[in-house]
Amino acid sequence: MNFLEERIVKDGVVKEGNVLKVDSFLNHQMDIKLLDQMGAEFRRRFAGKPINKILTIEASGIGIACVAAQHFDVPVVFAKKSQSINLDGDMYVAEVESFTHKCKNHVIVAQKFLTPKDHVLIIDDFLANGCALQGLIQIVQSSGATVEGIGIAIEKGFQSGGRIIRNLGFQLESLAIVDGMDAATGKIQFRGQDAPTEGGEAKSAESEEICRSSTLD
Amino acid sequence: MNFLEERIVKDGVVKEGNVLKVDSFLNHQMDIKLLDQMGAEFRRRFAGKPINKILTIEASGIGIACVAAQHFDVPVVFAKKSQSINLDGDMYVAEVESFTHKCKNHVIVAQKFLTPKDHVLIIDDFLANGCALQGLIQIVQSSGATVEGIGIAIEKGFQSGGRIIRNLGFQLESLAIVDGMDAATGKIQFRGQDAPTEGGEAKSAESEEICRSSTLD
Repeated sequence: MNFLEERIVKDGVVKEGNVLKVDSFLNHQMDIKLLDQMGAEFRRRFAGKPINKILTIEASGIGIACVAAQHFDVPVVFAKKSQSINLDGDMYVAEVESFTHKCKNHVIVAQKFLTPKDHVLIIDDFLANGCALQGLIQIVQSSGATVEGIGIAIEKGFQSGGRIIRNLGFQLESLAIVDGMDAATGKIQFRGQDAPTEGGEAKSAESEEICRSSTLD
Repeated sequence: MNFLEERIVKDGVVKEGNVLKVDSFLNHQMDIKLLDQMGAEFRRRFAGKPINKILTIEASGIGIACVAAQHFDVPVVFAKKSQSINLDGDMYVAEVESFTHKCKNHVIVAQKFLTPKDHVLIIDDFLANGCALQGLIQIVQSSGATVEGIGIAIEKGFQSGGRIIRNLGFQLESLAIVDGMDAATGKIQFRGQDAPTEGGEAKSAESEEICRSSTLD
């Protein structure tokens, strides 16, 4: 187990419905030293990539992205989830529709912060069905910028998001991939560290989550 | 002018209605080196205070708080603005009502992350009428923890939030206090660096903003 998996085992809590609570160190209270370790690991995994900007999405991605950015020496842009009154000017907007959750969300980035010269690392805390991530990828591509990679803290390997993103050819690096959880015992099964991340076949999702995203600009 | 004021003059944009846009370096795209300078300055201003936790509020406070936390070697807790489905358990909830904006917001922190042993530095990007900040202060006090200080990037000195918080006896440190803006000329007037921050009398607000907050727990 790596440092993040060890921390998940130590302080994560498995709840019914495949919910993994990591709010004591990752997405409500944040252990900044852990975030710094994660940043260093992202730097190692994306070594050699000409990354000049990190893109994340509010709210829980921001802390991870900002601390990681110190390892890359680049600025961070965070996408907003709904149109803010203070966000005037031209914007990239991806409409992300979750059939599972029966809701639409807008993912918004001001156009001036993404240009064809940008080489972007996308960072977020969780990847499950990948709807928000698909919106972020679309926005980067709409801008003419390049997605150099995607760094995720925790991927739910039993949902389809990671498989879809990897099938599209992106370098997706999840620091911990959870392939199964048991709320009764609290046990968490991580994807084997020996097998390449791409090779591990996710077990079929209990309820396949589907999302559709389209770019409006 | 200090480093933040210089940056505001260089890259900030004054808009009609006393709007100061700093989205190219502070609250949409974030200059991480600037955030690091801000963190070091907060550390200097709150030197000697027994701070063991930083509290902020989503979304744009998170980046500043996380980078600042590295200078204090403490964890960050960010308050959520509306009840998240993943936030079970006991919570501190402050209801913040803005008469000006005619809306109510809930500021929420899980109770387990604030205890009477905590000595809290509150950090946020903007202070105007101070509604959200009043909610955060109430939550810290409800938990029995101590507010050791409040660090703000940019305070709108012509709105009442800062005056109220200082009158209540809190050590409020705003790295830049804007006493006036002119959208026509783009000029920004900062509070004099020689005068103590408490001494500068804010000009009367053009439209006094009032908010009321109450703690529900």
